[in-house]
Amino acid sequence: MKLADHPAQTRAEFHERLKRIGAERYHDRHPFHKRLHGGQCTPDEVRAWVINRWHYQSRIPMKDAAFLSRVEDPQLRRIWRHRIEDHDGGAEAGGGIRRWLALARAVGLEPDYVASGAGVMPATRFAVDAYVRFVRDMPLLDAVAASLTEMFAPKIHAERIEGLLKHYDFADDASLAYFRNRLSEAPKDVEFGLTYVLDHADTLEKQDAAAAALVFKTDVLWAQLDALWHGYVEGRIPPGAWRPGEGLLDSAIPEPGPEATPAPDAAAAS
Amino acid sequence: MKLADHPAQTRAEFHERLKRIGAERYHDRHPFHKRLHGGQCTPDEVRAWVINRWHYQSRIPMKDAAFLSRVEDPQLRRIWRHRIEDHDGGAEAGGGIRRWLALARAVGLEPDYVASGAGVMPATRFAVDAYVRFVRDMPLLDAVAASLTEMFAPKIHAERIEGLLKHYDFADDASLAYFRNRLSEAPKDVEFGLTYVLDHADTLEKQDAAAAALVFKTDVLWAQLDALWHGYVEGRIPPGAWRPGEGLLDSAIPEPGPEATPAPDAAAAS
Repeated sequence: MKLADHPAQTRAEFHERLKRIGAERYHDRHPFHKRLHGGQCTPDEVRAWVINRWHYQSRIPMKDAAFLSRVEDPQLRRIWRHRIEDHDGGAEAGGGIRRWLALARAVGLEPDYVASGAGVMPATRFAVDAYVRFVRDMPLLDAVAASLTEMFAPKIHAERIEGLLKHYDFADDASLAYFRNRLSEAPKDVEFGLTYVLDHADTLEKQDAAAAALVFKTDVLWAQLDALWHGYVEGRIPPGAWRPGEGLLDSAIPEPGPEATPAPDAAAAS
Repeated sequence: MKLADHPAQTRAEFHERLKRIGAERYHDRHPFHKRLHGGQCTPDEVRAWVINRWHYQSRIPMKDAAFLSRVEDPQLRRIWRHRIEDHDGGAEAGGGIRRWLALARAVGLEPDYVASGAGVMPATRFAVDAYVRFVRDMPLLDAVAASLTEMFAPKIHAERIEGLLKHYDFADDASLAYFRNRLSEAPKDVEFGLTYVLDHADTLEKQDAAAAALVFKTDVLWAQLDALWHGYVEGRIPPGAWRPGEGLLDSAIPEPGPEATPAPDAAAAS
């Protein structure tokens, strides 16, 4: 009996299978998140997370454009397009990536430094860029299925908002605006994406491919936190990646000792 | 002396070179356009043009999304993004491709037939899809340079509006809305694209590549009209392409002769 001869799972069974992938593999189970939400991260661990996660945020609009570029159905393009708008915002203001840079500023990082991507770990780039390529190259069904980690995101965003507000001075409505916005943006994306996947995965072979795509995406997210833990919790920072002290806002640079107090002239000029 | 040793053209020289490419190679010089604007096209030649040009229109948003998917600078993405919106429109209404389908209806074609792409000539697909791939694969500068055929478009759109209004019954404000909208949309795109190309083509090597990209794009447009002429003016329609009589609106189907008049019962039921 060949694979294609096996009957497809029912819609409910397949939906259950997708949810189980999240329950078993989504990065809310990663120890870095427990550490972050539990208030055990040092300021530099938080900064390393913000810097590396920037790379993911900044590639999401490119990933969605790669998807659009392959969609022949204008109506599907029209429905998908707002994801790019949600993340990039307008020419002047708004958008998830600007909100992420507000978080960067709140944790003491120079937004331009973060936006440059200079300090991102190579392992982060490899994982994120693999996702963009996946969406560019794989069947549309698999590309949509990979986006379904958003099914599990509202829970982690809510935990994050609660944990960060409780444990970190930088956390307030402004710095956490990214997560609050995603709480309302993600569910509408999920509703469309999930319906698309359940509708289009009409053979066991396509269901297996869609499930594998979702597993792949959980790997993309998990690998980023593994790299973060290795580099910044265990302190094995790879060559070229951000080192504590780099890219800080002036206000976040530790106060100099008395011997480093600027001369009166310099102070007057500032 | 190697190529890289040659000095770059001045901004004015290079701009002149780009304009000359249009003067020599843009498809307003193609005999099909003279025939169309001069009122010599038969209704079926106009329909063949509308059907094939649909493929080009429908791929433009995919081309622009392919461009966006490669742009790392969020501000460039934000500025470019409206091209997709201009062509696709909103979920309910608007957009160049809907306006193209209004033209299709005006010339007696069933919009759903045109939108299906069923009758498009293979040569049209090859040319248009080569453009989408070019933008997906080539340096961003070349991709922007290829879009600069829009420098020459307002003139052809204005000629087209004038010529079609003068010579064809189907032409009115509603059916020609696509061209009127492009008269205002294209110049802002050109202004940005031209500045981008003049700014970024800062070596002779890059200027040559950008000029070659613009030549390539004129080839993409010209090849479509050559195929159209061969198929529908000379009457050598390739296998699979639209044949006169297919995809017509009921109202555009020629009146049957008296012997084909429906029986009274059938007329009552309609």
